[in-house]
Amino acid sequence: MNVNVNGRQLFFCSCFDISFVIPVLILFCSCHKLQESLLSSASGYSNYRGILNWCVVMLILSNARLFLENLIKYGILVDPIQVISLFLKDPYSWPALCLIICKCLALLFYLWLQGTFGERLGTFLHLINLSTILCLPVATVLFVSSMTPVGAVFALAVYTILFLKLYSYKDVNRWCRDIRQARARTLARSLSYMYYFIFAPTLCYELNFPRSPRIRKRFLLRRLFEMVFLMQLLVGLIQQWMVPTIQNSMKPFQDMDFSRMIERLLKLAVPNHLIWLIFFYWFFHSSMNFVAELMQFGDREFYRDWWNSETVTYFWANWNIPVHKWCLRHFYKPMLKRGVSKRVAQAAVFLVSAFFHEYLVSVPLKMFRLWAFMGMMVQVPLAWFVGQFLRGNYGNAAVWISLIIGQPIAVLMYVHDYYVLHVQGPSAG
Amino acid sequence: MNVNVNGRQLFFCSCFDISFVIPVLILFCSCHKLQESLLSSASGYSNYRGILNWCVVMLILSNARLFLENLIKYGILVDPIQVISLFLKDPYSWPALCLIICKCLALLFYLWLQGTFGERLGTFLHLINLSTILCLPVATVLFVSSMTPVGAVFALAVYTILFLKLYSYKDVNRWCRDIRQARARTLARSLSYMYYFIFAPTLCYELNFPRSPRIRKRFLLRRLFEMVFLMQLLVGLIQQWMVPTIQNSMKPFQDMDFSRMIERLLKLAVPNHLIWLIFFYWFFHSSMNFVAELMQFGDREFYRDWWNSETVTYFWANWNIPVHKWCLRHFYKPMLKRGVSKRVAQAAVFLVSAFFHEYLVSVPLKMFRLWAFMGMMVQVPLAWFVGQFLRGNYGNAAVWISLIIGQPIAVLMYVHDYYVLHVQGPSAG
Repeated sequence: MNVNVNGRQLFFCSCFDISFVIPVLILFCSCHKLQESLLSSASGYSNYRGILNWCVVMLILSNARLFLENLIKYGILVDPIQVISLFLKDPYSWPALCLIICKCLALLFYLWLQGTFGERLGTFLHLINLSTILCLPVATVLFVSSMTPVGAVFALAVYTILFLKLYSYKDVNRWCRDIRQARARTLARSLSYMYYFIFAPTLCYELNFPRSPRIRKRFLLRRLFEMVFLMQLLVGLIQQWMVPTIQNSMKPFQDMDFSRMIERLLKLAVPNHLIWLIFFYWFFHSSMNFVAELMQFGDREFYRDWWNSETVTYFWANWNIPVHKWCLRHFYKPMLKRGVSKRVAQAAVFLVSAFFHEYLVSVPLKMFRLWAFMGMMVQVPLAWFVGQFLRGNYGNAAVWISLIIGQPIAVLMYVHDYYVLHVQGPSAG
Repeated sequence: MNVNVNGRQLFFCSCFDISFVIPVLILFCSCHKLQESLLSSASGYSNYRGILNWCVVMLILSNARLFLENLIKYGILVDPIQVISLFLKDPYSWPALCLIICKCLALLFYLWLQGTFGERLGTFLHLINLSTILCLPVATVLFVSSMTPVGAVFALAVYTILFLKLYSYKDVNRWCRDIRQARARTLARSLSYMYYFIFAPTLCYELNFPRSPRIRKRFLLRRLFEMVFLMQLLVGLIQQWMVPTIQNSMKPFQDMDFSRMIERLLKLAVPNHLIWLIFFYWFFHSSMNFVAELMQFGDREFYRDWWNSETVTYFWANWNIPVHKWCLRHFYKPMLKRGVSKRVAQAAVFLVSAFFHEYLVSVPLKMFRLWAFMGMMVQVPLAWFVGQFLRGNYGNAAVWISLIIGQPIAVLMYVHDYYVLHVQGPSAG
């Protein structure tokens, strides 16, 4: 008698009584059975959720080691007093703050006047006003010697935001004039409503902003705590981790030692990326939500799920929603209406973005190198390449790699040039 | 007239015709709406699949940097010839191989004889045989000077496997005798079937092993390729990454410089863990599947999904199924049958496992330090702690941490003691 159990041939003499065979079968069949290994493709197994935990544990442990190595090598470099010196060279001269206060006063005056001009004079003054907003801080930064680079970035960022807001305000007013009946309402908006718009966390003007029903005190306090804590963390990480790594990178970059350059670049990529991620959360979640909660501003969509983006375009359209919304409403769509093709309009948006990136970096450093400009412009072919050849998780990974690697390249370029110009240059000359 | 759209109050004078209001609404309402940020808990958003890609990209980039740093610092250390010297001190003396060949011949003789003895004499000879298997290689390793540690580990592992297999064989034979009718079949198994069991990738004897229907040639070739490639990779990684890291760790461990000790430990953890993972795949997937395919052995469950384990017990019960099966069948269950409580039986299994771990490490190093023994025994309280206090992903992360950190601690302990005893000792004396 042959019996086939679990793929094995059991030979029984026919004289065996079945009642004796059963316990033997139980005893021996429980041990092995015909089956594939889990990692063989034939097993059809696919539960690897433990691997995510593994990744997280490995990342935390690797970075804990880097952090410990850094502490052993350099000691504690965090110095809160030094931060002040980044904003101020001369404690009696506050050029960046003066610039911002001046602008606020000028704006008040301009807005107070704006109802009194005719349409053509109004447009002319508007253009003069916008170009002043872009050029005045540049002149100040380049000619006032007590201006520090960090203070300059801060002032320029405020001016850029004002420029975009005023542009949006005038655009909406023009649209309202086209629909004549709405004009009365536009002009009826009070000066206080304009000031609400100036401080609201959005760049797009609207006649009626959505408002949240009340200020949630616990939400506000949590965001405030995050703002304060993450600000400290950012400053600490930059002082303790970024600065020594950048200083150590100068020599390989001057010697053009390629393998060491790549090693330094990858070494810088980790703190740079972490700092960027914390900055993203600090600025787009904590700070903007804090301001919005305080002003009962209802639209809290300051970012979308860019971390899942599978194309470069998706990333740029979703990580900074205020700017994206402005570009779409006041630049991309008007261009499409005038018959410009989608591809050209998209490239033009990247061009404007590249201009502002360069503006915010070159002017404070007093150094026109176009690295930031090129960094933005390179996104156009990159977006085409990723969209064309990579899908799903591969596309997502490509976006992450471009973020993690792209930024420190630009940072190192600028720091290297700044170092050659300001530190090495004078001493060599 | 007040209209509430998207949470905003729109005030309309009643004189406005609704046909004029609609385009205005479309124009301005499309820009903002009342909504929460994605990262706010109120949004209910939870799609973070991009984060897994982020983790993978970060891990690859970080380790690429470490690898590059290592290459810049040490150059290429991989040396295939040096591997041979790990197995052989004197090219004319092959003690480990002799030991294994001797054993095979002795086993052949023993199995040929076993049918001829009575039951009591058979049991007595069996016990002598088992104790010889454990003691003979120990004596050889300790007294033959041309035995290298790596050769000794290899010989001891083969002897341990034989010990477990013969123990299982005798146990099954005894059970068959208890069920008298099965006895004839047991004794009727030929010597060639016994040799099939000796080489089969399992430690548990059975009267009828499940057999796979045919040898899949492509499967076999792929496993062979993996075996050869991963073996090279393992040797390369050990020479290039482990050895310099361990050598650099000796000084902090002698000076008892704690912060540097932890830094070195974490630095060692990454290559050690990678090597362990590759070893796992090489041994439990490639090699065992290769042997099983060649012998048409049907049961390929050499491991289960230990990477998802949420308790320490689950890990130990699933990463090495041949040993786990043996322990369960020939040690744990027989103890339970004799009325031992589950907890004591579990601790006893860990004790036996600890003994064999120590046996495989201490004898080849000729150094009895009990680090491996304690490493295994510490799993008992660890299993209790993790099972008691950590659940789900936290439990899984705890298992990973114990693996990633636990192993290099033991490795560093042994290397440190070996260094003090064999390298520093004689030169200092």
